[in-house]
Amino acid sequence: TTYDIALVPGDGVGGEVVAAGREVLDAVARTSDADIGFAWTTYDWGSGYFAEHGRMMPEDGLDLLAPHDAIYFGAVGSAQVPDHVSLWGLRLRICQGLDQWANVRPVRFLPNVPTPLRTTGADLDWVVVRENSEGEYAGLGGRNLSGRGPGNEVAVQTSLFTEKGCERIMRYAFELARTRPRRRLTSVTKSNAQQYGMVLWDEVFTRLRADYPDVETDSCLVDAMAARFVLRPASLDVIVASNLNADILSDLGSAMAGSLGLAASANLDPERRHPSMFEPVHGSAPDIAGLGVANPVGAIESGALMLEHLGQDADAARLRRAVDAAAAAGVLTPDLGGTASTADVVRAVLDHL
Amino acid sequence: TTYDIALVPGDGVGGEVVAAGREVLDAVARTSDADIGFAWTTYDWGSGYFAEHGRMMPEDGLDLLAPHDAIYFGAVGSAQVPDHVSLWGLRLRICQGLDQWANVRPVRFLPNVPTPLRTTGADLDWVVVRENSEGEYAGLGGRNLSGRGPGNEVAVQTSLFTEKGCERIMRYAFELARTRPRRRLTSVTKSNAQQYGMVLWDEVFTRLRADYPDVETDSCLVDAMAARFVLRPASLDVIVASNLNADILSDLGSAMAGSLGLAASANLDPERRHPSMFEPVHGSAPDIAGLGVANPVGAIESGALMLEHLGQDADAARLRRAVDAAAAAGVLTPDLGGTASTADVVRAVLDHL
Ligand SMILES: CC(C)[C@H](C(=O)O)[C@@H](O)C(=O)O
Ligand SMILES: CC(C)[C@H](C(=O)O)[C@@H](O)C(=O)O
Repeated sequence: TTYDIALVPGDGVGGEVVAAGREVLDAVARTSDADIGFAWTTYDWGSGYFAEHGRMMPEDGLDLLAPHDAIYFGAVGSAQVPDHVSLWGLRLRICQGLDQWANVRPVRFLPNVPTPLRTTGADLDWVVVRENSEGEYAGLGGRNLSGRGPGNEVAVQTSLFTEKGCERIMRYAFELARTRPRRRLTSVTKSNAQQYGMVLWDEVFTRLRADYPDVETDSCLVDAMAARFVLRPASLDVIVASNLNADILSDLGSAMAGSLGLAASANLDPERRHPSMFEPVHGSAPDIAGLGVANPVGAIESGALMLEHLGQDADAARLRRAVDAAAAAGVLTPDLGGTASTADVVRAVLDHL
Repeated sequence: TTYDIALVPGDGVGGEVVAAGREVLDAVARTSDADIGFAWTTYDWGSGYFAEHGRMMPEDGLDLLAPHDAIYFGAVGSAQVPDHVSLWGLRLRICQGLDQWANVRPVRFLPNVPTPLRTTGADLDWVVVRENSEGEYAGLGGRNLSGRGPGNEVAVQTSLFTEKGCERIMRYAFELARTRPRRRLTSVTKSNAQQYGMVLWDEVFTRLRADYPDVETDSCLVDAMAARFVLRPASLDVIVASNLNADILSDLGSAMAGSLGLAASANLDPERRHPSMFEPVHGSAPDIAGLGVANPVGAIESGALMLEHLGQDADAARLRRAVDAAAAAGVLTPDLGGTASTADVVRAVLDHL
């Protein structure tokens, strides 16, 4: 099979890490027991495109992406375009426009990588399942001067929670939890202070639990959860949370694994009516763009998630073993305290494939 | 001076820790160089009161609190009352009803206390300044079935940001930052994804910076900030954030200091038209209520914040030294891996006053 992949490098280090990931994925295909290959179509959208066209992607961008088997994405964000414009114009537009409602963010601890916590290590293995279509990222709200005149501007930002939206992401998380050895699912809200959306979320979670008696569950408030990540990390397995809460917790989790540069992410349409999108969690990192030292592991591991989504589990596992071996050999980029370049890491991964 | 303090123990361990704090504060007054004392009036509000009266506090509760010099609060929350009912009925009602718009949460690292991070220690000293009157805790929103019928409920939760609300909390944080040796202030938002309220926040912060050229500033997204707490903790000094973001980050910070049980909090009306409220950050902890092992340090340190608010800085400093000495002597409750009881910690602090 030749998989038809849309490549969207985006801004900053985005291009560097997807180039690294593409090289690794092509090598995985060449060395696979299965008969697979990748055909890449590059879409140069992002802040550069914005400078010329006044928008982050063409009007028919979603139509261009729709026929592909998957989307491999870099990062977005630059000093030239306000962050909320660039994000809503590209990344969030793709996620929401192609109904990629499940954002799956595993946190893996690699061998030999220094972690900030005393207790972290090989026994930890989390997946944050993030609601990706509504919640705090519904984009609803507005700004205006209040009746009291200048200096009295008011802004509202509205989160939207639907019963259907809660149910589908939770069922996804329950199903994922039951495939894992510990079969544990923790739901995160802030329902003590946010008495509408978060309480609906809790109610749906309570209702669904009965359908998954084989999954051990608990609920945790997001503030207590942030504390729990550092104080009782071994108590976590699969975590399901709303868009913003999961965003915060997945960054915290990957920091605990040593660097945001390690973190991989899948934006899935689990019903497969649209292509899913795979991207590192880190941003465009303008401060190190062009230096050739961006950590490509997040992008490479996102490639492993893409392989799984395409049904190539054996190759995904083989790729992860190669990433582990490269880390174990001490080939680490500066964000992990090493001196390796992006290219060094790619070479080390290729050596171990 | 005799300070007239309203004591609101609340639920669970709340009563145990405020009793401990009261004992310590009375001893501070007895041993003070200043001529001070405390007169305590206890208000037994909370879930017990709810069981009898169907509300968490009397209708005229705010009027009862208003004449006091300060409020010393325990914790709220129990299995008998839904969390959002108990919180909005008592703690948030007091904060918002008495316009305690600044919630100040120092994170102190105590000697000899085991911390989860390799790098944490005596060189770290943060203050989270939390907007306490609006934002994500505005209480706005609602729930309803959508037109599509059963199983299609929809909930919205609206955050409210006002220019005035942003400005006053930021000015408070700037003024605080300029009294500290490092004079550094970090503002936290999620303005890339939340394009109304958070963008207004950023704009106000940018405008105010010009008034405080002596304070070094930066802005950080909340997800990156969670990562920064664990990866670059020494880069932080004073942090100013919205209600929810600051809630998450202050819990994360106190977990890094070893336990939520250590964390103190001041809910201030900086204009002093209403009494301010001092409370530990931890909750009612029903699992350990009645066992006599709750960590009283958060409540005791909240007492130190109250002393400062009352103008007794020397006694606040003396109290903190006694807390440090008790920790250094190894008198730690079980949340910190020790075997001391609440009473043991009180005794150790009294010994070092
Ligand atoms: C109990 C809850 C509403 C409260 C909050 O979020 O404000 C608590 O978490 C805190 O941090 O004081
Ligand atoms: C760039 C930003 C909008 C994005 C998000 O919050 O979704 C990023 O933080 C992420 O986690 O992918």
